[in-house]
Amino acid sequence: MTADSARITAVDTYDVRFPTSRELDGSDAMNPDPDYSAAYVVLRTDAGDGHEGHGFTFTIGRGNDVQVAAIDALRPHVLGRSVQELCADPGSLSRDLIGDSQLRWLGPEKGVMHMAIGAVVNALWDLAAKREGKPLWQLLAQATPEWLVSQVDFRYIADALTPEDALTLLREGRTGLARREALLLERGYPGYTTSPGWLGYSDDKLTRLAKQAVTDGFRQIKLKVGADLNDDIRRLRTARAAVGDDIRIAVDANQRWNVDEAIEWTKALAEFDPYWIEEPTSPDDVLGHAAVRQAVGPVKVATGEHVQNRIVFKQLLQAGAIDVLQIDAARVGGVNENLAILLLAAKFGVPVCPHAGGVGLCELVQHLSMFDYLALSGTTENRVIEYVDHLHQHFTVPVVMRDGHYTAPLAPGFSATMREASIAEFRYPDGAFWVADRAGLSDQENVA
Amino acid sequence: MTADSARITAVDTYDVRFPTSRELDGSDAMNPDPDYSAAYVVLRTDAGDGHEGHGFTFTIGRGNDVQVAAIDALRPHVLGRSVQELCADPGSLSRDLIGDSQLRWLGPEKGVMHMAIGAVVNALWDLAAKREGKPLWQLLAQATPEWLVSQVDFRYIADALTPEDALTLLREGRTGLARREALLLERGYPGYTTSPGWLGYSDDKLTRLAKQAVTDGFRQIKLKVGADLNDDIRRLRTARAAVGDDIRIAVDANQRWNVDEAIEWTKALAEFDPYWIEEPTSPDDVLGHAAVRQAVGPVKVATGEHVQNRIVFKQLLQAGAIDVLQIDAARVGGVNENLAILLLAAKFGVPVCPHAGGVGLCELVQHLSMFDYLALSGTTENRVIEYVDHLHQHFTVPVVMRDGHYTAPLAPGFSATMREASIAEFRYPDGAFWVADRAGLSDQENVA
Repeated sequence: MTADSARITAVDTYDVRFPTSRELDGSDAMNPDPDYSAAYVVLRTDAGDGHEGHGFTFTIGRGNDVQVAAIDALRPHVLGRSVQELCADPGSLSRDLIGDSQLRWLGPEKGVMHMAIGAVVNALWDLAAKREGKPLWQLLAQATPEWLVSQVDFRYIADALTPEDALTLLREGRTGLARREALLLERGYPGYTTSPGWLGYSDDKLTRLAKQAVTDGFRQIKLKVGADLNDDIRRLRTARAAVGDDIRIAVDANQRWNVDEAIEWTKALAEFDPYWIEEPTSPDDVLGHAAVRQAVGPVKVATGEHVQNRIVFKQLLQAGAIDVLQIDAARVGGVNENLAILLLAAKFGVPVCPHAGGVGLCELVQHLSMFDYLALSGTTENRVIEYVDHLHQHFTVPVVMRDGHYTAPLAPGFSATMREASIAEFRYPDGAFWVADRAGLSDQENVA
Repeated sequence: MTADSARITAVDTYDVRFPTSRELDGSDAMNPDPDYSAAYVVLRTDAGDGHEGHGFTFTIGRGNDVQVAAIDALRPHVLGRSVQELCADPGSLSRDLIGDSQLRWLGPEKGVMHMAIGAVVNALWDLAAKREGKPLWQLLAQATPEWLVSQVDFRYIADALTPEDALTLLREGRTGLARREALLLERGYPGYTTSPGWLGYSDDKLTRLAKQAVTDGFRQIKLKVGADLNDDIRRLRTARAAVGDDIRIAVDANQRWNVDEAIEWTKALAEFDPYWIEEPTSPDDVLGHAAVRQAVGPVKVATGEHVQNRIVFKQLLQAGAIDVLQIDAARVGGVNENLAILLLAAKFGVPVCPHAGGVGLCELVQHLSMFDYLALSGTTENRVIEYVDHLHQHFTVPVVMRDGHYTAPLAPGFSATMREASIAEFRYPDGAFWVADRAGLSDQENVA
């Protein structure tokens, strides 16, 4: 069968869960015991070239099965479609999935159904990049501005960003691309690390990991806050003592506060010079973030990992509610919607510092920031990608950090491919780990 | 077993779908072919009193299975719980469900997971009202202000509505309650009808149904718009000719437009004196609605049926973005969150005109408006509940309209109980209707 007639022959889904809650990795003020998980999808074809498209939604445990069911509901839109046509125009699939009026009712464009769309759309981009033999960041950076604009859904954002605006930004963004690509390949893209700052860690562990972060070349670390103010003051003092005054320390409340609390609490931490306060309140509260930002400067306000779609990001920018925009590769409707969000950020001149960590989020989102640097914003100034040293070993092309920077991945695709052995071991509930776990801990079997 | 020791013994779910798309009932500019469906849940107990709690999420077809999976994911939080404790404090279950940090990740408080919480919480209120032997509107209207305030989650809305504000509103709202209850029982609560205005109907059918609506006592009808401007002008002219100048005609774009389009299109319809423009753009776009409202007055701006939670409603009110707030009984996190939204509307002095129709939405939401009239806003002025004459026959206590008014239901509960025979016939895919349908239309079996 030639490539031209190749079809999508399977949309296989997997419920993969890692038992991270046992170590309090990932613990914060709202999420005390996450089991980092992936609702994982593989697009298979009959092209005979060995390429598959991999994608996933990141969750933190329970409900991963609901997310898998949502991806399953999209299968009829994908099966039997022309591989070549879809890869030439991933936006066409994105529009089909978002445009299914019956499924749209379940959002629209938010929550479980929208993240499922994101997983499938991202899997298609992975496939497209593999077939092109390029890492996704390079495929995007080499694409024409006209084609990139064709990949964006301007519905509900055209009052802030028109297709003409986008074209202008992308045309101007290409100036100096070759020089920046050389720099990127040489130095990588700056990261910051959250590994020292989980709420469940002791002060000793915090100090040790914070010092290690500086040794490893990071210029910014992040601490979780929001459970207890006195603890936060002590931990922030501890961290500041460990890293000195030249390292940025961001703090992250994971939506713990109401607006007034956010303002008071952030001011109480100000003496330790936090660089940004992340998720001070509900990700839905545009006006609330604007009020917080008005009150807590010079501390910057950051949010985005739970922002549901481009429409809310648009308003955060219109309202002057954020200093730092945090995209997430697997929360919104995939690469296409993240292109819209990167363009909105560029239009408003707000730096993008992606959320990552979880399972595979670092692997994915680095591609989007590298594209942004090469062909849109043109700078890494005040821009850093979150880094957490969890679970990278489960991916066939894990991120490689060097001197606090993400090394540009050279393997074709979106770096989304999880190792088959990892899927086999951590599939829930029938993977080898979970079977053994239940056998050894049968009294916990029915714990909710 | 005595009532005190009774437990929740089952959380049974059903995927129920009605083939409404065959008649173009419910067709609008965004939803051309809905199959009205319910992800239905029944709470069973061992109290031995015969009472069950019924609730559901309304969907329009595909994805109803995803919604059922989401309700299933909540089962461990409900099974085995004390019936008496839960019924005495439904807010405790609401908080548990919203507070499950792993499930919260899938929202938070939006989309599939949040609607599932709403279904379960509403089922509990149905059970509580049945055990009290009261229709839900009466249970709520007779509750103390203090208890009602205890049922509200003020997280993320306290900057606009404090518990003290809520208490004051509810205390003041009780003045004259007995007189209003007598009026309610005598006259009912005013409705308006959308039955004439579906986009798929011919002009003749529109004229006939619009005249019938006036004959039936309705003082407001609603037309779907947004697919084609010339068609809309013709249909609105037709409707205005049919009902005369004294009947209000609302128009509903079902999120079809960008902000600029919404303004232009609404202005083009202004000569026919539309009462409100409903869902002019994305339900997520607070600032967009504010811009539309600024431009299209005296036409009012209405939205809410797809507004995901109290946090977005709060902002719509804070931004002065709406003239009419449209709660939906089954979109947000159930009665508890709708109490918060009714209180917010009362605080800002914005009338609530609920969305209804679908499957069972009229049955549910009438209870909330009747409570609001009796014990909170104290008025029905400029307030109407949507009415659509679909599918009421499937409920054991269907709404009863009299002279364009909803008659106050007297049966205990939330009017949520679907007839067992209806569930058996329309269960998907194994109910009698769907089995026969596939047998007769086997070539359509795999249509997505």
